[in-house]
Amino acid sequence: MGNGYGKLAGYTQVEELGNVETPIILTNTLSVGTAVNATVRYILNLAGNEDVKSVNAVVGETNDGHLNDIRGGHVKEQDVLEAIAGAKSGPVEEGNVGAGTGTRVFGFKGGIGTASRMVPIDSVGSYVLGVLVQTNFGGTLDVNGAPVGRELRRSNQDTETVAGEDGSCMIVVATDAPLSSRNLKRLAGRALHGLARTGSSMSNGSGDYVIAFSTAYRIPHGSKETVPVPPLLPNGAMSPFFRAVSEATQEAIYNSMFMAETMEGYGGHIVPAIPVDKVIEICRNYNVLHLQKKLD
Amino acid sequence: MGNGYGKLAGYTQVEELGNVETPIILTNTLSVGTAVNATVRYILNLAGNEDVKSVNAVVGETNDGHLNDIRGGHVKEQDVLEAIAGAKSGPVEEGNVGAGTGTRVFGFKGGIGTASRMVPIDSVGSYVLGVLVQTNFGGTLDVNGAPVGRELRRSNQDTETVAGEDGSCMIVVATDAPLSSRNLKRLAGRALHGLARTGSSMSNGSGDYVIAFSTAYRIPHGSKETVPVPPLLPNGAMSPFFRAVSEATQEAIYNSMFMAETMEGYGGHIVPAIPVDKVIEICRNYNVLHLQKKLD
Amino acid sequence: MGNGYGKLAGYTQVEELGNVETPIILTNTLSVGTAVNATVRYILNLAGNEDVKSVNAVVGETNDGHLNDIRGGHVKEQDVLEAIAGAKSGPVEEGNVGAGTGTRVFGFKGGIGTASRMVPIDSVGSYVLGVLVQTNFGGTLDVNGAPVGRELRRSNQDTETVAGEDGSCMIVVATDAPLSSRNLKRLAGRALHGLARTGSSMSNGSGDYVIAFSTAYRIPHGSKETVPVPPLLPNGAMSPFFRAVSEATQEAIYNSMFMAETMEGYGGHIVPAIPVDKVIEICRNYNVLHLQKKLD
Amino acid sequence: MGNGYGKLAGYTQVEELGNVETPIILTNTLSVGTAVNATVRYILNLAGNEDVKSVNAVVGETNDGHLNDIRGGHVKEQDVLEAIAGAKSGPVEEGNVGAGTGTRVFGFKGGIGTASRMVPIDSVGSYVLGVLVQTNFGGTLDVNGAPVGRELRRSNQDTETVAGEDGSCMIVVATDAPLSSRNLKRLAGRALHGLARTGSSMSNGSGDYVIAFSTAYRIPHGSKETVPVPPLLPNGAMSPFFRAVSEATQEAIYNSMFMAETMEGYGGHIVPAIPVDKVIEICRNYNVLHLQKKLD
Repeated sequence: MGNGYGKLAGYTQVEELGNVETPIILTNTLSVGTAVNATVRYILNLAGNEDVKSVNAVVGETNDGHLNDIRGGHVKEQDVLEAIAGAKSGPVEEGNVGAGTGTRVFGFKGGIGTASRMVPIDSVGSYVLGVLVQTNFGGTLDVNGAPVGRELRRSNQDTETVAGEDGSCMIVVATDAPLSSRNLKRLAGRALHGLARTGSSMSNGSGDYVIAFSTAYRIPHGSKETVPVPPLLPNGAMSPFFRAVSEATQEAIYNSMFMAETMEGYGGHIVPAIPVDKVIEICRNYNVLHLQKKLD
Repeated sequence: MGNGYGKLAGYTQVEELGNVETPIILTNTLSVGTAVNATVRYILNLAGNEDVKSVNAVVGETNDGHLNDIRGGHVKEQDVLEAIAGAKSGPVEEGNVGAGTGTRVFGFKGGIGTASRMVPIDSVGSYVLGVLVQTNFGGTLDVNGAPVGRELRRSNQDTETVAGEDGSCMIVVATDAPLSSRNLKRLAGRALHGLARTGSSMSNGSGDYVIAFSTAYRIPHGSKETVPVPPLLPNGAMSPFFRAVSEATQEAIYNSMFMAETMEGYGGHIVPAIPVDKVIEICRNYNVLHLQKKLD
Repeated sequence: MGNGYGKLAGYTQVEELGNVETPIILTNTLSVGTAVNATVRYILNLAGNEDVKSVNAVVGETNDGHLNDIRGGHVKEQDVLEAIAGAKSGPVEEGNVGAGTGTRVFGFKGGIGTASRMVPIDSVGSYVLGVLVQTNFGGTLDVNGAPVGRELRRSNQDTETVAGEDGSCMIVVATDAPLSSRNLKRLAGRALHGLARTGSSMSNGSGDYVIAFSTAYRIPHGSKETVPVPPLLPNGAMSPFFRAVSEATQEAIYNSMFMAETMEGYGGHIVPAIPVDKVIEICRNYNVLHLQKKLD
Repeated sequence: MGNGYGKLAGYTQVEELGNVETPIILTNTLSVGTAVNATVRYILNLAGNEDVKSVNAVVGETNDGHLNDIRGGHVKEQDVLEAIAGAKSGPVEEGNVGAGTGTRVFGFKGGIGTASRMVPIDSVGSYVLGVLVQTNFGGTLDVNGAPVGRELRRSNQDTETVAGEDGSCMIVVATDAPLSSRNLKRLAGRALHGLARTGSSMSNGSGDYVIAFSTAYRIPHGSKETVPVPPLLPNGAMSPFFRAVSEATQEAIYNSMFMAETMEGYGGHIVPAIPVDKVIEICRNYNVLHLQKKLD
C-alpha cells in the first residue's frame, strides 16, 4: 500500500484476512527479521497461546543507515521484547525515540511524530483518529504551504542540502470508529495525501506504507461462529475520516521534526535538528503561522 | 479479478465501495456501451430516482463473434431493458439463452449455466450459494476428471477442433450468507478454481471475471448513518463457502454445455452441441459418472 | 487506480495487458456508455480493421450534473466521433472545453487543464512528460501553498461555498520516455500527489483516476513475435519522472481553473470563474507568487 | 498473490520494483524471521557489497507444525546459510527435503516437488519453464482427474483422513524466456490453476503464493542508465506459457508426494507416504495412467 520499495512484514495476510494479530513493530530495514522473531516469540509466550503455531508479525521499517551502523545488527530480540513490554497509554514520545532514533527527513533530523483528530458524526458523538509516523525521506519541506525547505536552503541552514531523495515513511493509523477492513484500507490510502502535502518526493526508493486499524471491535482468533460486531459506519460517513487522516498525517510529520534533536551518529555523521525558530519566522513571513486560528 | 482481458464495466467502483447498485448485465463484447446506457436509463427511470445523477452499471461480456454478427451491433437498449423487466425468480434458463446464445466452449456450443450448493453452518442452519456462468472459452474439457475433450477429439466428434484458445468466462456468484465485501471478494477468487478444474486454458486472451454479492443485507444508497447489518460470518467460516463456489462453478460450466443446442449462426458457422450420450459413455469408461453418489 | 468511485471504462484490460488500444475519451458520468459505443465504432471503421471484433474503449468521466442536464443524455455518439476526428497536435485548449465544459472545482468553475515538464536524463538528453486533467472536485484550494480557498471564503468571493465535497479528477499522463507498463503504473500513482497538494478533499465520492502511457514505442496488436522495443528506462531513473508528474498535475489543475470562465448552466445554476486577480493578490501576500523564480 | 493467509516476506518490493535481489528461501511459518536475517547476512557479506544497506529478502513458508516442533525454533541462521551455499544446478531433490521435510498434503506426506516444460516459440526455438513447489495443504487428491483421494479413503488407506483442510502451497516458477515483470506476474497467477486441478481445497487458512522470475536478463542494482534487455516476448506469446505453468505445477505437486517417504515426527505423529502402487492401480482403473501418451 503506497509506494512499495520496502520490507513491511505481514502485508499479505493483513490484506487477506483484514485483521492484525500482533503489536505493530517499527524498526530499521535490516532488523526486520529480528523484529519478526521477537514478535513471534512474544505471541507464542503469552498465556493461553501454548498451542499457537502461526503468527503474522507486522513489522515496518525505514532505513537509518546514515546515522546508524545498520549493517552491525545492533537491534536485538530483547530490545523488541522490551519495547513491547514498555508500551503504555498516555502521551506518545516523539522525535529521536525508538525506530525514529536515527532517521532523517527533508535533510534534517526526523523521528517519531504523532497527531490526532476528533471526527464528529451526527447522532453518534465523535470518534478519535490518531496517526503515528516514522519519518525518513527526502524532498523539500512545506509547512502549511510555506516553502520552508527552500527558504532554509537559501539561508544556508540546510547543512546537508537534501541529503538524497530516497527514503520512506511508515504511517500507522488508529481509530475507535467502527470501520470495515475495506474502509480501513481506503482510510490508509488517504494518509498518503498528508504525506504528499509536506513536500515528500516519494521517489523511486520510497517505501511508504500505511496500516490502519480500528479498536472498536476485536476479532476472535480462528472463530467459525458469527461474531458480534458493532454496527459499522457506512461509506457515506467516510469523508470526514479521510480529511482527518490526511491532516493528522501532515501534522504528525511536522511533529516528528519539531521534536527531534540534532544527532551525531555512526561514522561521525551529524544530522541537525530543524531550526524551529527559523521555521516560525518563515511561516510568519508566509502568513501561515496561525493558519488554523485565523482562517477556519 | 481473475484474468483481465475483458471489458467488464463498473469494476473499480465495486472494488472501492463494496456494493452493486444496478442489475448485473451480461452481453457481448461490443455491446457493453449499449448495455451500460440501458442500465443507466433503467435506474434513472425508477420511481424515486428523479434526482439520481450517478449510476455504476455493472456489465460483463464475452465475445460471440464467431456465431454472432458482433460488428453489426444488433443488441439494442430496448433488448436490455426487456431483459431486466423479464427477470424473475424460479428455475434459470440454461444453454443458448441471452448472452449465452452465441458462445462456444471447448469447441462446442456453450451458453448460460447455473448450479448451487447448500452450505451448512453450525448453529445457524445453512446458506445457499448460487453460481451463474456465461461460457465462451477454449481448452480441453475434463468432466469430473475424465478427459472428455481428448476422447471426443480421438473419435472425431470435435468438429471444429479446439476452435482457438482465447475466450472468456463471466461468473456471477450470489449467496444469502451475510459476508463482508472482503470475504465476497475472496469468494469470487475461489470460483476460478472451479473454472480451472474444467480444463479451461485461461489463455492470454481470457477475460475471466467473477462478481460475488450477498442478498443478506442492503446498503442504503448514500447513507451517512450507521446501517444495521446482520452479524457477518467471520473468516473462519469461509472454507465451506470456498469449496461450494468452486464446485458450483465447475457444475455450472458443465450445465451450460449440456443444456446448449447446436447452432448455425452468422456466416453459416455451425457450432455443435456436445454429444451428451458420448460424454456419458466416456464418463462411464472413466468411472466418474456417479462420482458424487459412489464416493462421498 | 487512485480512488475508485467512478466509472472509468476499460480499466481491467489496461491493467492486464499494459496497453491502450483506443483514443482516451473524457466525458460525463452518464455518457460513458455512449462514449464507449462511439469509440468502438471508430475503431471498427478504421481501414484495415474489417475483421476486428474486440475493442477495449478507455473512457473516463466526472459528474457535471450541477451545470449540465446530465440525465438528458445530450452527448451523442456523433459528438464523440467529431471529437476524435478533431484531435490535433499543438497547444491544448483549456478551461470550459469538451468534458470540462460543465465541471467545477473548489467551488469555482473547473475544466480542462494541462501542463508539462522536461525530464533530463544523463547521456540521453531529456524526455517530455505532459499531464491533462478534467477537474471536478471539492476541497479547499491551495495555490503553491497559499491558502487561497480560505482567504477567498473570508472575503465572500466564494459564492457557492465549497459546493459539496464529492467529485472527481481524471488525469491523463503522456510521456515520450520509454517506460515499462509497470513503471507507467507507478508514474500514474504519483500524479495523485500533485492532486493532494492542491487541497483536494478526495472524499468518499471521489473517483480519481490516472492513466499514463508512453509514446516511445507501439505494441503491434495481437503479435506473437518478439517486438522490437527501445531499451527501457530502469527503476533507478524514475525519481525525476515522479517529481515531474506530481508538479505537472498540480499546475494542470491550476490551469484548468485559471482558464475557465463563469458559466450559467442547467436550471439557472451559475458557477463563477475563480477571480484570478484576487488569487494573484493572495499569492503575493503569501509570498508564493514567484516561488519558482525566487527560490529555485 | 494467490491466497494471502501467509507470511511471505519481501512481497511488496517485488511487486513495486519487478525484481528479486536475493536467493528465494523456503522455510516454516515461524522461521521466516530467522531466514530473513540469514539472507540479509548472506547478501551483506558478498564481495562488493560492503556498502549495501538495504536487502529485500524473499522468504516463503508453509506450516509444518504437525510433524515439526515448530515452536522450538530449530531452524538457525547457519542452516539457511548452508542451504544457500549448497545450492547447485542439476537434478532437484524432491520429497522430504529442506522446507518440505515436515509438510503434508492431502493427508499424506508432502514435500518438495518439481517439474518443467519446454515451450516452443516459432522462430525462436524453445524456452524452458520450471516449477518448484512446497506442498502442505488439504483437500481431496485428484491425479490426472482420477479421484485418488476418495478411492483411498474408501479403502482405508488414508490413515489420518484429510487431516484438516488448512495449509498452503509455495510455488516458485523460473523460466529462461524473456518476459516482462507484468507477464511474469500473469504467469504466476496461472500456476494456481495447476494447484486447483490437484484438488486443493484452498481454504480460509491457505497461503498460496507464486513467485515467477526470468533468467533471461539481469537488472543491475540501482542503475539509472538504460539497461540493455533482450527483446521481450509480447502478450500474444503468453498462452503456451500459461498452459505450461499450469501443467508443470500440477505435476510438481504430484512429484512432491510420490517422492516423499513416511515420516514420524514431533510428538510421535506419523504421516504416511502415499501408497504409490495403489495410486497406480486407481489411475489404471480410471484410465488415466498413460493419459499423456495415449491421447495427445
